[in-house]
Amino acid sequence: MASTSLTFATRAEHRAWLESRSALPEGFRIGTCAFEFVPVEVPKPGRMRLTLIALDRPTPAFAAKFTRNAFPGAPVLVGRRRLDGAALGAVVINNKVANVCAPDGVEAAERVCAEAARLLGLAPEEVLPSSTGVIGWRLPVDRMVEALPAAAAALQGGSALPAAEAIMTTDLYPKLRRADVGGGSIVGFAKGAGMVEPNLATMLVYLLTDLDVPRDALRAALDRAVEGSFNRISVDSDTSTSDTVVLLSSRRRPAPPAAEFAAALARVCGDLAEDVVRNGEGVHHVVRVAVRGAPSDAVAHRVGKAVVNSPLLKAAVNGNDPNVGRLLCAVGKVAGAAGIALDPARAVMRVGGEVVLEGGAMRLDPEKERRLVAHMKAAELYASAPPADGVLFRPPIDHPPHERRVEIEIDLGMGAGACDVLGGDLSHEYVTENADYRS
Amino acid sequence: MASTSLTFATRAEHRAWLESRSALPEGFRIGTCAFEFVPVEVPKPGRMRLTLIALDRPTPAFAAKFTRNAFPGAPVLVGRRRLDGAALGAVVINNKVANVCAPDGVEAAERVCAEAARLLGLAPEEVLPSSTGVIGWRLPVDRMVEALPAAAAALQGGSALPAAEAIMTTDLYPKLRRADVGGGSIVGFAKGAGMVEPNLATMLVYLLTDLDVPRDALRAALDRAVEGSFNRISVDSDTSTSDTVVLLSSRRRPAPPAAEFAAALARVCGDLAEDVVRNGEGVHHVVRVAVRGAPSDAVAHRVGKAVVNSPLLKAAVNGNDPNVGRLLCAVGKVAGAAGIALDPARAVMRVGGEVVLEGGAMRLDPEKERRLVAHMKAAELYASAPPADGVLFRPPIDHPPHERRVEIEIDLGMGAGACDVLGGDLSHEYVTENADYRS
Repeated sequence: MASTSLTFATRAEHRAWLESRSALPEGFRIGTCAFEFVPVEVPKPGRMRLTLIALDRPTPAFAAKFTRNAFPGAPVLVGRRRLDGAALGAVVINNKVANVCAPDGVEAAERVCAEAARLLGLAPEEVLPSSTGVIGWRLPVDRMVEALPAAAAALQGGSALPAAEAIMTTDLYPKLRRADVGGGSIVGFAKGAGMVEPNLATMLVYLLTDLDVPRDALRAALDRAVEGSFNRISVDSDTSTSDTVVLLSSRRRPAPPAAEFAAALARVCGDLAEDVVRNGEGVHHVVRVAVRGAPSDAVAHRVGKAVVNSPLLKAAVNGNDPNVGRLLCAVGKVAGAAGIALDPARAVMRVGGEVVLEGGAMRLDPEKERRLVAHMKAAELYASAPPADGVLFRPPIDHPPHERRVEIEIDLGMGAGACDVLGGDLSHEYVTENADYRS
Repeated sequence: MASTSLTFATRAEHRAWLESRSALPEGFRIGTCAFEFVPVEVPKPGRMRLTLIALDRPTPAFAAKFTRNAFPGAPVLVGRRRLDGAALGAVVINNKVANVCAPDGVEAAERVCAEAARLLGLAPEEVLPSSTGVIGWRLPVDRMVEALPAAAAALQGGSALPAAEAIMTTDLYPKLRRADVGGGSIVGFAKGAGMVEPNLATMLVYLLTDLDVPRDALRAALDRAVEGSFNRISVDSDTSTSDTVVLLSSRRRPAPPAAEFAAALARVCGDLAEDVVRNGEGVHHVVRVAVRGAPSDAVAHRVGKAVVNSPLLKAAVNGNDPNVGRLLCAVGKVAGAAGIALDPARAVMRVGGEVVLEGGAMRLDPEKERRLVAHMKAAELYASAPPADGVLFRPPIDHPPHERRVEIEIDLGMGAGACDVLGGDLSHEYVTENADYRS
């Protein structure tokens, strides 16, 4: 999880910090462009942005993880095939249309790859497609093919920040993290206002490194880093059809010891995962649930997820309401449903360091209630203000003002299993964003 | 599910319909009273209502189902012990405090039962306790014992409606259903604005009959009826620590054939379950998901629950937005997570009777989009209006205006498993109710 505890007073301050960390690893160039289009399904004009990530030469050292949703998007189907290929030379990314269960979606993705390959002097199977946006709509392939030369002409090797911005949809601000390790670096950027990008149904993450880590080691390190980061967050429990995490190495710098690379990769992934939650749609508070004493890590993971996905607890956190009975309800629900033989007398729960359950009974008093409220208020990113038209709530921030969290600890008193899970609260801004965005 | 399709233009019309159906079965009396109290944990005055359900003589013919939450409330712990007892003669119910994980909660519940038993000439173990309200707070036992004589003095054998009202908390209106069967009747009433009463953490259901069905048959019929009704609804996915369904027979009338009794009981339970969803906190639309073609009924149940619990789909329904990509996402998520070998090419999905997915691709066009919007608007119970203070949304209805639903059909094309599940949408009113109610 986030290794820093930064505060940003303004968007300019946040942006300056991002810029100071955005230098691309050696061997990568990035180009973006945008154009207007009209989807055939709902004829309402939109603006699509294309992003090209190009390596100076194709690399065999690449790794990718895809969604486990049973309706995977066409780019995920194509991407899984690419995993067995000899090398990757580029990634082509679009927003607005996710290309999921659209008629002839795989053919459309392949045509975009082929055109990008032609422009970059690659084989079509050396290009990985990525799409984020509405599920079920067709890609505007002709318009994309027309636009690709502009993205190729814009390729530059300085900063990753233009790409971190171009892949944004409902994100409030770009998310970019780096680690300098050995003689090289890992730079990652992400879009997604949740496990799902709730409007547009995709979380996309790109990790670029110049460190010469071989394919197998790269894939093993990515497996572990994703398990400890993106697989431990939830904004709204809806696993996307398009979630994709890609790691590419340009092999320009010698690899550091494996443990050192893995730790740096895990840090970048953990930081980006927490950024995704903090920028989650409608999120006013990041909630960290540290589960300990579980019969296994898997059970700890499941309990943590149940807590951060409880609508009642999320709504209470939104109101800075230390309604810890809802915490107990969420833990008891998953334990009951999963047949976990929990003994209420052995469980201990803390919020903001304060014991709220011990010895089978809740430990509450008016003084403690005030301290719990203060802990939650300190972790608030912003408060809702009455919207101009009375109904449509918009977040009043364009940068992350701080990195504080609501801290929940749950010791089940059963074993050595442990897991930290991150989630967000449930707010009027979430309902506004998702009830009104499309029709 | 609901066997009628009623409309109610006003609260008075709804109330007249309830009154016409509220006659108690023979052998039952009901009394209620109310008093002010101050919880020790958060010293903010509240008003507690007590309800007594008394049989003219104790009955061995009773059944009850309790929550599977691993932190069950004290009334649930006591109630499970009562199941093995010889007979029940009364139920004593309070709102405001759920008596869950409160210090000495079981002793408190038993003391209330003992006092009710003394007033009614019963043994303490012939009284079943029921509590709904905040988790972790202590019952105000002294105040309850003082108030019980007033509830006993109010006992009357005419109408169940006073009890259906007295057990309400955030419910907008009372929920009462009946079936006249054989020579007798089954009358049921429920509180709960969801699987959980989201504020007060309880769904309570009481089913009263004068039909002389023996204990074993009564329990078997209740098992099946609950499985087909209350276990197939969700307002917000949070299983309460206190959910309780109780069925009591006064044995005054001869039992009809078992299948006839079971069908009548299932109808009353199904109607009440749909009432609970329709009156769910912030619910603007009831959503029915009919899953067919699943490998088993259990898988169909799980898929249906995943759909009605998807925050993104719920928010889209709230906005009358036929964002059917989110339906596909929710089905794909649960299939992927549960290892269900779903073939997208064989699945068929319909909304409001319109095919939206077939042959592995979504089937969308602007004309169909308009029909889907119309279907959703027709099922809307009310629309949000800008609140007076800009933030606190309150539902503008005090009765159910109609019984229409958003109808979703999912055929997985895999087998003969089927299940119908009911849920609601996600609205500003839900966030207001649950972010602001306590602090």
